[in-house]
Order: sequence, then C-alpha cells, then structure tokens
Amino acid sequence: MSNHSHEREEGLAFQPKFAADGLATCVTVDAHDGVVLMVAHMNAEALEKTLASGIVHYWSRSRGSLWRKGDTSGQVQMLVDLRVDCDQDALLARVLVGGDGGACHTGRRSCFYRRVERTEAGVKLVEIANT
Amino acid sequence: MSNHSHEREEGLAFQPKFAADGLATCVTVDAHDGVVLMVAHMNAEALEKTLASGIVHYWSRSRGSLWRKGDTSGQVQMLVDLRVDCDQDALLARVLVGGDGGACHTGRRSCFYRRVERTEAGVKLVEIANT
Repeated sequence: MSNHSHEREEGLAFQPKFAADGLATCVTVDAHDGVVLMVAHMNAEALEKTLASGIVHYWSRSRGSLWRKGDTSGQVQMLVDLRVDCDQDALLARVLVGGDGGACHTGRRSCFYRRVERTEAGVKLVEIANT
Repeated sequence: MSNHSHEREEGLAFQPKFAADGLATCVTVDAHDGVVLMVAHMNAEALEKTLASGIVHYWSRSRGSLWRKGDTSGQVQMLVDLRVDCDQDALLARVLVGGDGGACHTGRRSCFYRRVERTEAGVKLVEIANT
C-alpha cells in the first residue's frame, strides 16, 4: 500500500474522494434504529453545506442541482453524525428525520422496499411489508 | 413521471440500472444488527453470481476483476436477502459474515470507523470506538 493510501485509511485528515463526476456516494440511515433509508450522492458543496448546517444536503443527479432533502416533502434530515469509509469515497449519514419520518419519494419510509428473489422462473421483486 | 419510471418504482420486475461503467452501488449490512459494514459495487455478473450462489460477489474497481468477498480473508458474506431501491440503481445486501465477522480490509468490522467533525479549526476525522 502506498503511503498516500495508508494515510487516507488510517489518518485523521478528511480527504473525501469524489468520482470523475464530482460525486461521492452517501448511505443514509435512521439514527434511531440504523435502518438504511436511502442512497444518494453528495458533491463538495452538498458535503460542506451538510457539515455547516447540520441538515443533510445532496446533489440531485436527476435535477442537476443541490438538494436540501425535505424542502418540499418536510422529510428534513438532521445530521447526527457523518462517517467516512476506509478509502474515503463513501459517506454514511446517521440522521433524525422530520415530517412523517420517511425518506422515499414513493411514500415509503425506506427506498429499499423490495426484495430480489431468484426462482427457477427467473428473478423478480417482492414487496417487503412495513418499509 | 413516465410510465417507464413508474413501472421501475412500483412494479415487481427486476430492472437493475447500472451506471455508464456497468456498476451499481451495493450497501452491505450485517443481518444480525443492521450495522452498515461496507459500500461496494456489483456489475451484472457479480449480481448474478450473488443471487445464484447465495454468497456475495462484487466487482473490484481497484483490481478490475470479479471479487468473491472472503476468498482470502475468510470474511465470506452469506446473503440473507438482497433489496433494491426505488429507482433500482442501488442494492442493499443483508448478510451473515464468516471468519471473524468483519468486512473491512483494515481489520475493523465496518469500513465506517471514522466520524467527520467540523470545528472552527477545520474538518477532521475522529476514530469511533468498536467499529
């Protein structure tokens, strides 16, 4: 391992690694119970605004704009803490959710409301209750 | 919303959306307690092998090869279930981990062992105990 990657993995300097598109993946979990609510992306500005305000901001790839989650839905995400993984290219946001407590634009609490099942007939999805 | 995206979000057909690089993000959590262990990537082959074998496979971007997690570390990930998010571009694998129960190549259980802290002096990382 190079000294550079050793420092990135074991050091205490924050050196987020954005992909070629300027984005890093952010996994967001409910701080109450650890349930994974959503996966989204942050660019440098979203990351800075999240840390500065304590309210989670993302970069919306579909809209091509900064996105303070909850501005229209009320599902504001108050940051409890933000973690970074070993190679600093993924973020984990632990949040408390405002509004109805959900995160998915479909109305469910979590975006991960379907399970992938493989049967002899092929692969299909099954909706999970209470997500 | 187009009919196509409505079907992708509400239907039960599995239509994973891979990025231009052929990869989808996979968040992996310990099925025992929901702790987020790691974030990695799957291409179509890794996804198919994961579903067919019940052992989680990823695509290693650093090595440019299919990667059955645990082959060298013993930290094999037995799939409990695989979930997909609303727009089907992110996966959530719930796993039971073999070996020492960890997932990170640094020796920690989770790759998310540091918290990002913003102070007046700047942003730094703090190691989290027992991750």
